[in-house]
Amino acid sequence: MDNTEKLPNSETITRTPFASSRKIYVPGKLHDIKVAMREISVEDAAIKGPGGCGSVVTVYDTSGPYSDPDVELDVRKGLPRLREKWIMDRGDVEQLNDLSSIFGKERLYNSDLDHLRFQDVKKPLRARAGKNVTQLHYARQGIITPEMEYVAIRENQRIDELREEMFQHPGQSFGANTPMTHITPEFVRDEIASRRAVLPCSINHPEAEPMIIGRNFLVKINANIGNSAITSSIEEEVEKMVWATRWGADTVMDLSTGKNIHETREWILRNSPVPIGTVPIYQALEKVDGRAEELTWEIFKDTLIEQCEQGVSYFTIHAGLRLHHVPMTAKRTTGIVSRGGSIMAKWCLAHHTESFLYTHFEETCELLKQYDVGFSLGDGLRPGCLQDANDEAQFGELDTLGQLTQLAWKHDVQTFIEGPGHVPMHMIKENMERQLKACGEAPFYTLGPLVTDIAPGYDHITSAIGAAMIGWYGTAMLCYVTPKEHLGLPDREDVREGVVTFKLAAHAADLAKGHPGAQYRDNALSRARFEFRWQDQFNLSLDPEKAVEFHDKTLPHSNAKVA
Amino acid sequence: MDNTEKLPNSETITRTPFASSRKIYVPGKLHDIKVAMREISVEDAAIKGPGGCGSVVTVYDTSGPYSDPDVELDVRKGLPRLREKWIMDRGDVEQLNDLSSIFGKERLYNSDLDHLRFQDVKKPLRARAGKNVTQLHYARQGIITPEMEYVAIRENQRIDELREEMFQHPGQSFGANTPMTHITPEFVRDEIASRRAVLPCSINHPEAEPMIIGRNFLVKINANIGNSAITSSIEEEVEKMVWATRWGADTVMDLSTGKNIHETREWILRNSPVPIGTVPIYQALEKVDGRAEELTWEIFKDTLIEQCEQGVSYFTIHAGLRLHHVPMTAKRTTGIVSRGGSIMAKWCLAHHTESFLYTHFEETCELLKQYDVGFSLGDGLRPGCLQDANDEAQFGELDTLGQLTQLAWKHDVQTFIEGPGHVPMHMIKENMERQLKACGEAPFYTLGPLVTDIAPGYDHITSAIGAAMIGWYGTAMLCYVTPKEHLGLPDREDVREGVVTFKLAAHAADLAKGHPGAQYRDNALSRARFEFRWQDQFNLSLDPEKAVEFHDKTLPHSNAKVA
Repeated sequence: MDNTEKLPNSETITRTPFASSRKIYVPGKLHDIKVAMREISVEDAAIKGPGGCGSVVTVYDTSGPYSDPDVELDVRKGLPRLREKWIMDRGDVEQLNDLSSIFGKERLYNSDLDHLRFQDVKKPLRARAGKNVTQLHYARQGIITPEMEYVAIRENQRIDELREEMFQHPGQSFGANTPMTHITPEFVRDEIASRRAVLPCSINHPEAEPMIIGRNFLVKINANIGNSAITSSIEEEVEKMVWATRWGADTVMDLSTGKNIHETREWILRNSPVPIGTVPIYQALEKVDGRAEELTWEIFKDTLIEQCEQGVSYFTIHAGLRLHHVPMTAKRTTGIVSRGGSIMAKWCLAHHTESFLYTHFEETCELLKQYDVGFSLGDGLRPGCLQDANDEAQFGELDTLGQLTQLAWKHDVQTFIEGPGHVPMHMIKENMERQLKACGEAPFYTLGPLVTDIAPGYDHITSAIGAAMIGWYGTAMLCYVTPKEHLGLPDREDVREGVVTFKLAAHAADLAKGHPGAQYRDNALSRARFEFRWQDQFNLSLDPEKAVEFHDKTLPHSNAKVA
Repeated sequence: MDNTEKLPNSETITRTPFASSRKIYVPGKLHDIKVAMREISVEDAAIKGPGGCGSVVTVYDTSGPYSDPDVELDVRKGLPRLREKWIMDRGDVEQLNDLSSIFGKERLYNSDLDHLRFQDVKKPLRARAGKNVTQLHYARQGIITPEMEYVAIRENQRIDELREEMFQHPGQSFGANTPMTHITPEFVRDEIASRRAVLPCSINHPEAEPMIIGRNFLVKINANIGNSAITSSIEEEVEKMVWATRWGADTVMDLSTGKNIHETREWILRNSPVPIGTVPIYQALEKVDGRAEELTWEIFKDTLIEQCEQGVSYFTIHAGLRLHHVPMTAKRTTGIVSRGGSIMAKWCLAHHTESFLYTHFEETCELLKQYDVGFSLGDGLRPGCLQDANDEAQFGELDTLGQLTQLAWKHDVQTFIEGPGHVPMHMIKENMERQLKACGEAPFYTLGPLVTDIAPGYDHITSAIGAAMIGWYGTAMLCYVTPKEHLGLPDREDVREGVVTFKLAAHAADLAKGHPGAQYRDNALSRARFEFRWQDQFNLSLDPEKAVEFHDKTLPHSNAKVA
């Protein structure tokens, strides 16, 4: 029995509200929903809040109830189940009497794990026989779900309620088609129906606040967390998730490869206000003690079911890596650097056959649509260095991902596509253009790209440069990179540095695309700067605490701050 | 008498060599010169050094003799006077018996300053009557100076001596015209003669190693240092200069506004291996106790002479800000944010006339060409926020800068142009295109641009994104921004963070432009990464110390490093 695992408690979770901010809840018009946002009070004569009263700036808020001191939370019970009623009201799901996965049951009924198991586990939901419960399926039937209205209101950040003229440079959007004024629920539905956007929201993760990933919406960012064989605890991972969403992570991927992966994920899910993604092959590999060639479809499928029933909202699946692609990597400088990609390449070579991810792809679709879990089709052959960028292997796999996207869409499974990697600046745009074409405008989700290989220790910056650019060109979500990339596992401060860096890159992309209202916060902060309203400047920052800290170091007197 | 000033000594100057590196000196073929570079030893079977022996990677090195343990240095005596003979051999300069500036003399003969004055001051050089001693003047006569051959060899980083095939992606250079293989001395001469490049090298700063600023060469970066009324000492500023060049600063601007500006600058110059720039109006303003309206041409001119005779290589002069531009800033969100710009705007409004910088511009040219001091024509009306980007005021001033460039060229004064500032990504390219057109392809030197206003504390990153892009589009030199931008004065670690961040941005631009050999280091580091040669990976990094530090934190065992 493992007594070394440390569990979260209310002391280990960050709940500090943001300075001069209050959480607001904007009601829906079509549905009985309340959309969470953060309102920053400022002393700015140039603006008024919605309704004309008080000077406020409303900002998109990923931090969930943690930053609202009025909400009582107990990490052992998990977050309020915001979407439970919406899901049940649709009448197309059933509650199972037990978990369906063999591994899930093993863990549930193992009394050695009682002390570290999240106690308040609900029985899983699944689509009733013959039903498809994906948001894509609803959207194609013309249904505007509460989730869709939620994201419409959320994306607007109340810009639709502002009375003042909003000065903003027209953007250059490379064919993206964001409405000029504000986002409507019908626009959200239409974007999902046309598969240009994904609303990741597993029916088993009702705690998550709906958000949307698509190039006609605000550019989103993902933060990776997860334990490893040598470090970290459930306590740390839950706090890392809370910490990452505090600074702006729109989704979190749990890439745990250490002990108690199942239980760690449960703790994370029950306390996460954002959708959670995983790479299921990582856990499957742990189940065969790291021997890639021993992986089977059965083990993998059981892992998918296990995670579907816990509430993961999207899976990275490297189904596009085909046997004939593998020799294309032989002449590369850095071969295959994607972990999932190298696992599957090893499997393909050992068995000299196409991977079970590829051959069982439609079976996977059948499964995912019962839980509304989306695909993040993995780029197992992404380039690991500039030299390998945009090569035959990378684009060969991308074409296969395009074919798989069509299959996923046949089942109304929501799908986005993963992209590179390491790419010099002048070769980034080709990635976006090819992806849009090969994958029928499915959303793109990239890791960086890093624009040089020579700056380990600063790779959050080398990748933020590429990320801002590819976000501008049309990428819908940017996976963060921390300063520890290539060197080690990120700690808490690295997570913050990575998230804020990618938040600013995503925002730079929103500005360049001309997303409606994106420049509002920049204008407000700039006026505060010009008028020496230091507190407003801090409060409007992406990271107010760092702004205050840096200001203090040089000018320690508080009266200097109001000079 | 001021006894609080702290002076540098050998203990306060960083002289640590880079790990597994040695300083090499590549001889010239036309001139008796030795060009300093750094050679990194690696265990890389894929490469051989020049001559075919040993695996080495040669890198551009701005750190001067400080990183060569074989050179004996005494900070009280200054660096070896590398270029003295080259300058004297041309036979067109004379050594003056005394300083020419009134202020310079006052300081020199003030015995209260004896204790803090650099002791080994040489008498200044100046062009003999009727002579023009600028590199531009020589280049236009077809002369390849030792300085020109030095930069040709330096730019190549020995890529011309490599025997192996060099894999590199062809770049996209937007009309830049870098040779496909390597840089020749004649190419350098021709680029200077055509005014597309500037080789800043005051005849009174013979200690500096020649470098070149132009869009057909490696993108350069500048680091700002300088004391202020409340902080810092001569000791700190000299070490900041050494520290900045260690991490890659190609030039350093001394923006001191505190006490003992003249003496601080002397200490910096005598110990600097890179050209030094200044904003002379800052010191002139100190001479009139901060009252902008009391500035006069005479005070300013005396300041120019003072600094020319000390050895400053380029002056930021905001001569393009004209009286009729000032009202254009009235409707801006952040008005005039350039310090030089706001000083001159205040002066223009107080006197209701064109500034003396503008009206005496040709007299300034007459002066500068006697010392080969270059213009960095300042953008006093650069935008201070996204909203003000690319506006009438900014581009109105740019057009005036273009006219002044033609005047400067009439006198063969080397000239580059300063650029913004705060600009959203999609509006950056217009800045480059307009500058090239308005200023006849004179080199562009930008501050960022920052691509969003909402990330104080992370503005080295918001600006590195814009800097990498504008460098790719053709900007020749990028002024660094530190994490303290907008919040406070950078300390030593901020300087390092800012320099390395801008070095990686400049390198990303070199890669995107397809600069010959730029990808060599990326390839070598990527191979080391793929082969788990950790030490090589660290040693090839822009900041090896940080890479080692970050790696250690997670995997503390040294055997993990060779795994």
